[in-house]
Amino acid sequence: MKELWFSEYHSEDVKLSVRIRRELYSHRSRYQEITILDSFEYGRLLCLDGCIMLSEKDQFIYHEMITHVPLAVHPRVRSVLVIGAGNGGCLRELCLYPEIETIDLVEIDAELLGIVQEFFPKSASSFRDPRVRIQLTDGLQFVRHVHDCYDLIIVDNPDPFGPGESLFTREFYGNCFQALRGDGILINQHESPFYPEDAREVRNTHQKTKGLFPVAKIYQAHIPTYPMGHWLLGFISKKYDPVADLDAERFTARGLRTRYYNPKLHQASFALPTYLLDLLAGRDMNPSP
Amino acid sequence: MKELWFSEYHSEDVKLSVRIRRELYSHRSRYQEITILDSFEYGRLLCLDGCIMLSEKDQFIYHEMITHVPLAVHPRVRSVLVIGAGNGGCLRELCLYPEIETIDLVEIDAELLGIVQEFFPKSASSFRDPRVRIQLTDGLQFVRHVHDCYDLIIVDNPDPFGPGESLFTREFYGNCFQALRGDGILINQHESPFYPEDAREVRNTHQKTKGLFPVAKIYQAHIPTYPMGHWLLGFISKKYDPVADLDAERFTARGLRTRYYNPKLHQASFALPTYLLDLLAGRDMNPSP
Repeated sequence: MKELWFSEYHSEDVKLSVRIRRELYSHRSRYQEITILDSFEYGRLLCLDGCIMLSEKDQFIYHEMITHVPLAVHPRVRSVLVIGAGNGGCLRELCLYPEIETIDLVEIDAELLGIVQEFFPKSASSFRDPRVRIQLTDGLQFVRHVHDCYDLIIVDNPDPFGPGESLFTREFYGNCFQALRGDGILINQHESPFYPEDAREVRNTHQKTKGLFPVAKIYQAHIPTYPMGHWLLGFISKKYDPVADLDAERFTARGLRTRYYNPKLHQASFALPTYLLDLLAGRDMNPSP
Repeated sequence: MKELWFSEYHSEDVKLSVRIRRELYSHRSRYQEITILDSFEYGRLLCLDGCIMLSEKDQFIYHEMITHVPLAVHPRVRSVLVIGAGNGGCLRELCLYPEIETIDLVEIDAELLGIVQEFFPKSASSFRDPRVRIQLTDGLQFVRHVHDCYDLIIVDNPDPFGPGESLFTREFYGNCFQALRGDGILINQHESPFYPEDAREVRNTHQKTKGLFPVAKIYQAHIPTYPMGHWLLGFISKKYDPVADLDAERFTARGLRTRYYNPKLHQASFALPTYLLDLLAGRDMNPSP
């Protein structure tokens, strides 16, 4: 029997490999190499430039954590901006909230948007929700021209390399600050903390946002297909604290069915290991002892 | 240049591979295949029957979490039993507590004990701490004959297969109950929650201990070299609750230098994702949606 394995390098010296039934799609778009694989363990995988961005089996963890965390804190989210959401999982979670009036989805790669709708049909229905407006443009360009109009911005882009690179600049975060209302929240990616190259990126991203926003906290999740299974997200905010301002009762009263997120885990996800606290504070740049 | 990779299968269809400088030791002892590898990313690796048990670089996470969690709860630990501790990391952490009077280390595999002392010298000094008494015997046999004499038992054995198999039986946990004093605590392994075969093991172990002890809670840690980077531990206790009875002030006053553990993380590690709560409650045996 044929053995087909997809491997992702987490560092030069560590790789995760997933056995594949078949390759469903592979094409270099104007911006990146898009691959869809059918895997035995994780179902369908979306890979961009060789990195797993999404798997059918564990995507719920990532998407629940980037949406329910801010929505359980902010008292009334009406308008949301999602940047770089090639996949629909984030939209799907957002559409569960009836108080949300508009969701602007900004994605630079039209090909990716089409492919995701074709191969991840469970998420695709949300693209047709009447509140969703799709903007095919660069996220950095888009936020330059919007002021004081979003309650929540979710930067759902991949890594700080490739087409998402401009989304990791200080200018970008400054523009996000302007695009948010006075009590707005920004959720962004902070990578994995353990391998030295990633750890530097964690610290750089934290430094950039910390200087611009009154609140800049990091939270973590166990995501099996991401490097070392340990993924960090940023809760960057003009006003609300992610733990003190969590309204657990309101979230529970909504009766949403989640598979990873719950309010206790929400609070807990902001308690970080000591080596990561040291890294963020600049006390220690190397997580190995 | 030669490329030498060590791979561990996390399921039939997923493997983690680590690039290796050289193999330092490989021998089948009476009980298991013991391998010591020198890796680029993780330093030295101890592998038993093909599974990574310990890496120089991330071992601190596991060892801190199996020792400081119970010791920050129990008001006065004097006697400790460590079962299956082929490595010295757990001993090293225990030896930081001056109130501990005796540590019985039970290890069935004398060869493993020797190899660990040779190749992991940072941990080896603790083997010579005067409070440590080494018992070369089977953990199951040993606990059959001890009653009411330990404040803490740490079951630091590998997986529920191979020489550690007998440590996952109901009889073993019943004997541990008898071996513990009236307010004793047992820490044990609960594997990773995500892949179906592991998930069944998580639930079985939880079911076995839940029926025997008044308190049986699960906590989690991000450990990169363990499957999916998500490892579960059991806090099984006759009296103390791991969160309500945490004495954070006392722990902080000790001034111990930890790299993963801190009291906030201690509390947080008991907040579990919803899919895992469902699994433990028997509501859902398959973590994939």
